[in-house]
Amino acid sequence: MTPEVLERGKRLIDPALRAAVATLDENLMLRASYHLGWTDEHGAPATTGSGKGMRGALAVLGAEAVGSTAEAALDGAVALELIHNFSLIHDDIMDNDRVRRHRRTVWDVFGVGDAIVVGDALHALAFQVLLQEDVTPRSMAATARLAKATSAMIAGQAQDVALDGRDTATLDDCLTMEANKTGALLAQSVAIGGVLGGGDDPTVEALERYGASMGLAFQAVDDVLGIWGDPARTGKPVGNDLREQKKSMPIAVAFDRGGEIAAMVSTAFAHELSEQQITDLSAELESAGIRTEVEAIADHHLAAAIAALEEVTLTETAKVELAELARFVATRQT
Amino acid sequence: MTPEVLERGKRLIDPALRAAVATLDENLMLRASYHLGWTDEHGAPATTGSGKGMRGALAVLGAEAVGSTAEAALDGAVALELIHNFSLIHDDIMDNDRVRRHRRTVWDVFGVGDAIVVGDALHALAFQVLLQEDVTPRSMAATARLAKATSAMIAGQAQDVALDGRDTATLDDCLTMEANKTGALLAQSVAIGGVLGGGDDPTVEALERYGASMGLAFQAVDDVLGIWGDPARTGKPVGNDLREQKKSMPIAVAFDRGGEIAAMVSTAFAHELSEQQITDLSAELESAGIRTEVEAIADHHLAAAIAALEEVTLTETAKVELAELARFVATRQT
Repeated sequence: MTPEVLERGKRLIDPALRAAVATLDENLMLRASYHLGWTDEHGAPATTGSGKGMRGALAVLGAEAVGSTAEAALDGAVALELIHNFSLIHDDIMDNDRVRRHRRTVWDVFGVGDAIVVGDALHALAFQVLLQEDVTPRSMAATARLAKATSAMIAGQAQDVALDGRDTATLDDCLTMEANKTGALLAQSVAIGGVLGGGDDPTVEALERYGASMGLAFQAVDDVLGIWGDPARTGKPVGNDLREQKKSMPIAVAFDRGGEIAAMVSTAFAHELSEQQITDLSAELESAGIRTEVEAIADHHLAAAIAALEEVTLTETAKVELAELARFVATRQT
Repeated sequence: MTPEVLERGKRLIDPALRAAVATLDENLMLRASYHLGWTDEHGAPATTGSGKGMRGALAVLGAEAVGSTAEAALDGAVALELIHNFSLIHDDIMDNDRVRRHRRTVWDVFGVGDAIVVGDALHALAFQVLLQEDVTPRSMAATARLAKATSAMIAGQAQDVALDGRDTATLDDCLTMEANKTGALLAQSVAIGGVLGGGDDPTVEALERYGASMGLAFQAVDDVLGIWGDPARTGKPVGNDLREQKKSMPIAVAFDRGGEIAAMVSTAFAHELSEQQITDLSAELESAGIRTEVEAIADHHLAAAIAALEEVTLTETAKVELAELARFVATRQT
């Protein structure tokens, strides 16, 4: 079940996100609205296909955790959602993914060129949103954090592509890549909320640690779902990460183990996998205990995230919701 | 002949640009260095293939024009060159261009995925560069201008793609698109220099008007070179814009005229053009006076750019160099 804070975040952020996207050139709007799940590919209103709004909700909770209001984090929340969605649109091209959130990806519907330019537009719009009104020391600090996290995220994507081009990968390689690709923006989401809410440095840094750990838990679960997730819930084909031969955590753990299971992955990844081979390999990985091991990594980072919340004084309600969100992330099925 | 200010700008900006690019992830560095003309595709030092550095030079002159130093504009100059180069890398994918600056384009050498991610990395790095040090009201104002210009540039690229998908285009459509695609970043280049140099609002606005007019002159000449440029100098195949059926200024002028010349373009653009048809069409456009008409548009905007420099009080040396740069842009062969 989705935590109430994600629903609340969406109700708050959606109108501001729509207002920001409405400033785009008319040639970009349909593609952006389609990606965000607001319309179908012809512009008719849609009711499925929007994301969880995790980064926006984290920004809201960051501001509330330091004793401020959700409204204080609003521009930051919108900017974070824009950066996240820009990265999804571009990553889907690079990863050759045709399905996301149960729908065809932007490049698959509108072509690669249009997907590149709408991604670029959301990227640039994020910075505009944070800088559109009177610039304050808080909004400046938030913008600097957003720039840094965006660069880390892009470096992570480049590391991911490079890793997929290699024959093998260690868990360390994988965690470094995922801390950049996913962790940095999640960490800065809650930190940017804290900064916009006027939190002091030690408090914002604790929120950032919470977000970084939560990000690794998030990614560990993502990697489990990428192999063993239920397609009806994830919106992606069964065994998707095996089909695409992603060097995700389960694969890296198998390589680190060496021996029979590592050899099995190497052999399977030497060629394109048949559907039968995907089924077999996912069963082999599971019976070798790899799934359990990656789930333990998720649990470890979940515990670290929750511990970070105890290092400083935070508003009680927000603290409870941040912990709830981390638990949701680490146990989700979708 | 290249104006001395471009050489001077490069000498100043190049080390800072290299230092910024050196912070990129190792998987991104080779692609960025290749695109910037610093290395060949294997990483060996190269001596050809770098751009003119127009935007960086404009930022330097903007700061000097308001009585400050080139150094004051340095971060802005680097950020502007990064944004410009990100857009070239992505535009080459969208336009299916395989040659730039006499060399293969990034996507042609490294693939579309790698070209997308290195473009994204330069985009994000631009904002990081402006926000890396102690943030001041000047650097924040410069960042806000950069975000706005980047969004306009991307909107212009989307308009360009949309225009190319249509059967016809008016000169107004074309100028609106090009004012966004090229004009906005050139206008903000000199304005950002002015802002970082501490110029007051009326002075910065005059510099911005200079840059916007200079941008349209630049683009008019670019469009002439796109059809009639010497491949040995432009680094692009002869008649490139006709081959790609770009709705550039000469084509828009032909459509606006109507009659025989408009019909000729419509007929030619209904199918892929042979090399003979490209030669014939460029000769027909020239003898119909279209080339002369677009050159007159360039001259008109050149005059407007130079007039804008007289509206406010500027440092004399910088004013002379800005005028010289605009004249160079409007008469260049490459």
